[in-house]
Amino acid sequence: MAADADKSAGAQRLAEAVAAGMYARDHAARALGIGLVAVGPGFAKMAMTVRADMVNGHDICHGGMVFTLADTAFAYACNSHNRVTVAQNCAITFIAAARRGDVLTATAEERHRTARTGLCDITVSDQAGKLIAVFRGHSQEIKGEVVPGAGDG
Amino acid sequence: MAADADKSAGAQRLAEAVAAGMYARDHAARALGIGLVAVGPGFAKMAMTVRADMVNGHDICHGGMVFTLADTAFAYACNSHNRVTVAQNCAITFIAAARRGDVLTATAEERHRTARTGLCDITVSDQAGKLIAVFRGHSQEIKGEVVPGAGDG
Amino acid sequence: MAADADKSAGAQRLAEAVAAGMYARDHAARALGIGLVAVGPGFAKMAMTVRADMVNGHDICHGGMVFTLADTAFAYACNSHNRVTVAQNCAITFIAAARRGDVLTATAEERHRTARTGLCDITVSDQAGKLIAVFRGHSQEIKGEVVPGAGDG
Amino acid sequence: MAADADKSAGAQRLAEAVAAGMYARDHAARALGIGLVAVGPGFAKMAMTVRADMVNGHDICHGGMVFTLADTAFAYACNSHNRVTVAQNCAITFIAAARRGDVLTATAEERHRTARTGLCDITVSDQAGKLIAVFRGHSQEIKGEVVPGAGDG
Repeated sequence: MAADADKSAGAQRLAEAVAAGMYARDHAARALGIGLVAVGPGFAKMAMTVRADMVNGHDICHGGMVFTLADTAFAYACNSHNRVTVAQNCAITFIAAARRGDVLTATAEERHRTARTGLCDITVSDQAGKLIAVFRGHSQEIKGEVVPGAGDG
Repeated sequence: MAADADKSAGAQRLAEAVAAGMYARDHAARALGIGLVAVGPGFAKMAMTVRADMVNGHDICHGGMVFTLADTAFAYACNSHNRVTVAQNCAITFIAAARRGDVLTATAEERHRTARTGLCDITVSDQAGKLIAVFRGHSQEIKGEVVPGAGDG
Repeated sequence: MAADADKSAGAQRLAEAVAAGMYARDHAARALGIGLVAVGPGFAKMAMTVRADMVNGHDICHGGMVFTLADTAFAYACNSHNRVTVAQNCAITFIAAARRGDVLTATAEERHRTARTGLCDITVSDQAGKLIAVFRGHSQEIKGEVVPGAGDG
Repeated sequence: MAADADKSAGAQRLAEAVAAGMYARDHAARALGIGLVAVGPGFAKMAMTVRADMVNGHDICHGGMVFTLADTAFAYACNSHNRVTVAQNCAITFIAAARRGDVLTATAEERHRTARTGLCDITVSDQAGKLIAVFRGHSQEIKGEVVPGAGDG
């Protein structure tokens, strides 16, 4: 039990180190104001406020921005074990429109993981908890560590 | 034949009018530097240069930006008949990484369309013609015209 | 509260009546030995034993048979409100192989539903609870009732 | 050029040998009456007649049967290089209903292939050439040859 707790604490520390390393280099996420809310092994929660430059003329958030938020959470969740992992294919279903000023939160949870592939489910909700989109991502592990020398989970 | 040609020319003019109307209000597409290359009935081609604020620390374009380009071409293709149409669900497969400075072109072609739903296939290639991603979008027609009074196709 | 309970009991009775009506006509499901385990409003659980004529030479269940089981549960869940509803597009991820003799259970739960479209998540597990596949289905409501005159939910 | 022609002829012979080897063990395909029409490197065409035990009470073909036909063509196309390859995730869009007695043909073409993953597009049409469904499959290569010792393509 103590060993399990150690392992679990180690996996959490690793996930946090990986996320910090990724975020420092993640120009795209920062340019969109995507913030890291929480991360853990196989888990990430990220938030983004819908800005004027993310909407069309009806103040409806561009679907690509909703996807980008979800895809970012996906990337942090599936790289949290410090194995370099890339998105292979992703599907998104748009449930409700998000509007300018809405604060969207994407929650990514790994459903399954093998040595080479992973499956992650992401939901995007607004500040009222309303479901905006669901996203399912398939990842592929490639060679290397995200944070070299930090170990793996 | 003359009637067919008239109808076809009318559909082309309508697609161009709709695209112009959409683009004028499309803050998100313009903020990302997405340009409209060509449009027609059930067709759109759009281009985007991968900027420094679209990449991660390895100068690899964020998947969300590739999606956003493809999704934009999808929107212009499926709205080209002047019936307000929204994305319902979309799937993207990432084939090769795009890098900073690459000029990506998304080509959207409608595969099928009923009174209420549509299916569109989009490919994203770089300036050398290399395939970057494929995208399949399902749309839903809702009430109204994109450009009120311009008719429909 | 009593009214809510009545409504809920009515929705459950309707789901059961619709399922019985569908199953009586469902030659394909019965030919594959797919049985209805449980049904409710926006919910269905169905089971199938992997037979010799569902496998390849390695006794691995054909992916199409796993899909068919999941798709059947999807149909019963999204028609449970007695509005005729058809599958529009579906995606399946294969997690683990099922073998001859395995008893597979598909559990379908509606995630979202509007007047015209629906989203349903289905998981397929074996007799040991091992995850075999996940399936996400998008449905489209068309005109008519499944069981004419039985009302809707 | 002669070398290219030899290589191409060799790839065609290999695809045919692999298909014959797979079909001999493919109880599921044969139980459904799925026949192999043509095969080549990264290509397969298969046909199936919609039988009474493949339909519901309205004589509409079960979506799972349409998927199974497409998935079978997918398997033969992506294994045609004699590297054991399995479906990872697949998406199908249903365009039109098929009816009892219809002869459906699935045509599978590989769009992209790396050492470990592949992407294949499949269309399903009826005897009149009407589009019934489109299917996109992602495959994963695992260790081994389909026909041991026959080489690879």
